[in-house]
Amino acid sequence: MTLTSDPLQTENLPDRLQQALTVHLKRAAGALEAISADLAPMTEALAALLSSGKRLRPTFCYWGWRASGGPADSDAIVSAAAGLELLQACALIHDDVMDGSDLRRGLPAVHRRVAALHREQGWTGSADRFGEGAAILLGDLCLAWTDEALFSSGMPVEALLRAKPVLDAMRTEVMAGQYLDLVEQARAGGTADSVAQVMRFKSAKYTVERPLQLGGALAGAPPALQQTFSSYGLALGEAFQLRDDVLGVFGDPARTGKPAGDDLREGKRTLLVVLAQQAASDGQRKQLAALHGNPALDGEGVAELRDILRDTGAADAVEQRIDVLTRQARQAVADSAISEPAREVLDLLALAATARSE
Amino acid sequence: MTLTSDPLQTENLPDRLQQALTVHLKRAAGALEAISADLAPMTEALAALLSSGKRLRPTFCYWGWRASGGPADSDAIVSAAAGLELLQACALIHDDVMDGSDLRRGLPAVHRRVAALHREQGWTGSADRFGEGAAILLGDLCLAWTDEALFSSGMPVEALLRAKPVLDAMRTEVMAGQYLDLVEQARAGGTADSVAQVMRFKSAKYTVERPLQLGGALAGAPPALQQTFSSYGLALGEAFQLRDDVLGVFGDPARTGKPAGDDLREGKRTLLVVLAQQAASDGQRKQLAALHGNPALDGEGVAELRDILRDTGAADAVEQRIDVLTRQARQAVADSAISEPAREVLDLLALAATARSE
Repeated sequence: MTLTSDPLQTENLPDRLQQALTVHLKRAAGALEAISADLAPMTEALAALLSSGKRLRPTFCYWGWRASGGPADSDAIVSAAAGLELLQACALIHDDVMDGSDLRRGLPAVHRRVAALHREQGWTGSADRFGEGAAILLGDLCLAWTDEALFSSGMPVEALLRAKPVLDAMRTEVMAGQYLDLVEQARAGGTADSVAQVMRFKSAKYTVERPLQLGGALAGAPPALQQTFSSYGLALGEAFQLRDDVLGVFGDPARTGKPAGDDLREGKRTLLVVLAQQAASDGQRKQLAALHGNPALDGEGVAELRDILRDTGAADAVEQRIDVLTRQARQAVADSAISEPAREVLDLLALAATARSE
Repeated sequence: MTLTSDPLQTENLPDRLQQALTVHLKRAAGALEAISADLAPMTEALAALLSSGKRLRPTFCYWGWRASGGPADSDAIVSAAAGLELLQACALIHDDVMDGSDLRRGLPAVHRRVAALHREQGWTGSADRFGEGAAILLGDLCLAWTDEALFSSGMPVEALLRAKPVLDAMRTEVMAGQYLDLVEQARAGGTADSVAQVMRFKSAKYTVERPLQLGGALAGAPPALQQTFSSYGLALGEAFQLRDDVLGVFGDPARTGKPAGDDLREGKRTLLVVLAQQAASDGQRKQLAALHGNPALDGEGVAELRDILRDTGAADAVEQRIDVLTRQARQAVADSAISEPAREVLDLLALAATARSE
């Protein structure tokens, strides 16, 4: 086992996923073109969004299939897995509308892009409103296309009927998890437990557990193996979200693609922040309250907040939690009967997704 | 054939649809409850929205089934048909966010309702933003539950696989049609043809053609009958939308449930308005431009606009078009081999949906 290999590249998966995604996109574009040429901006906005991304959910779906004995040379599993990017596209497009975000994956968010079109064309009414409306509709289209992609994957009907309830659960859980996150942020009195609950549905189940189980269901995995995917997925998915939270505060903007301190300016309530609040002295608590969620936070303020998150021991506690969760995930695979190469790849994915220097 | 009977009541359909919808809602509520009690406001908002409505799409779906020889005593078709109300719930919830509407079916729109919850709870951040975010997510849930409802209807797998592409087309067309409507409103230079194109996808296909064809596909209708549903559905759906446009301008608020002149205040570009612009004298055109889409429009302004829509002949032209389309729809059924009682009900539905005094 060599830790320097990139598990994401195994079996040439990224290229195969990209090709399958292109097929899904062409089908969608064809359906829109048949209705009206005026829909071209919708297709273009989606193509731009899908041109990059880590393809985490398709990757876990594929390796759930392989771990369940599914063959490597199946085009159907690659197509089914790639379809999960359409669900992710819906989540991102709608999330950006809800948050009023300007950028996504280094490009203008869909609602900004379409608002710009409105301005270029000199159309009447509010360009921002038009952009938001169009983005809500494009997200809806992507969501509707998610199960269409699964059903057009070329999988046999029995496999589709086994997989559909997993996709159903995944869609309900991610939307419900996002609502719980809105409540968590609004309530502002969260505990480590309530933050963990949001992470479980919004991230762990959605990003790792359900994609693995979807691949497993397509391959006809037995219940014990689906349980292994759950143990691995819930632990790894939470660890992955915690790593993302840490990078959002301490990470290098060149690597994260986000401006330094953006999560702090937004006042995002993560485990890091909740633990710091609990362990803070009176002085630290006041500073935290004054700086966290302050939209005008400058570099000095960011540095002060980072110090509090370190000095209260919150940063160390989160690192320890990531460590424990990553071990749990790896142990679940080690204890299972999953054979190579899936065994090694799942182990490497656990390390890669939670590594400090990602 | 008696025109005084209510075709919507035939075979006790409204009660059966309501029961089936309650089952769908319970399943959805159960899925959310299993995640967190904090999701209760989402279930309550959906239950309130679904407590009323004309159930047009389920009704056409059911009669597409019956017209194709499906038996009246099937619970599965009632369940499958009722599931279309979830797609309609998504469309309404997202539409109200896009339009910033306060009311829906006489109750606060979902985003307003959830914003009020935020205020009651004294939560932090913007209540309006919270309400809009929650409404986008609830609409997403409803959309995801649409095909779940179909698949849990109890229909045999072969029937589901025939019906799924129809549901897929229906979802894509309604979202695409709504985007085309945004463009049509923004461009403000529409023609009778471009307005008809929006009506075709946003209303005619979505409300009548596809629901009928979904019922037909579930029952295994032959292509010729699906073509009859298309001829009937496209004509009737357009007529129905035109009637809605006319009622939006000339209708009695007590019957329409909307304040008089709301469509005129919003500046909604309907065939009525486009035809009036085309036929207007210079003076009328100036008046039209000044009053139509003016949010401060008072009762006098509404009356002035109504006069222009009448005096230019636009109102009469639209009535004639409704008449021609309704005849076309009825003729499609008359020319078909559809047997009773579906034959009479479809004929009565065409009359009821387009009648002046509805």
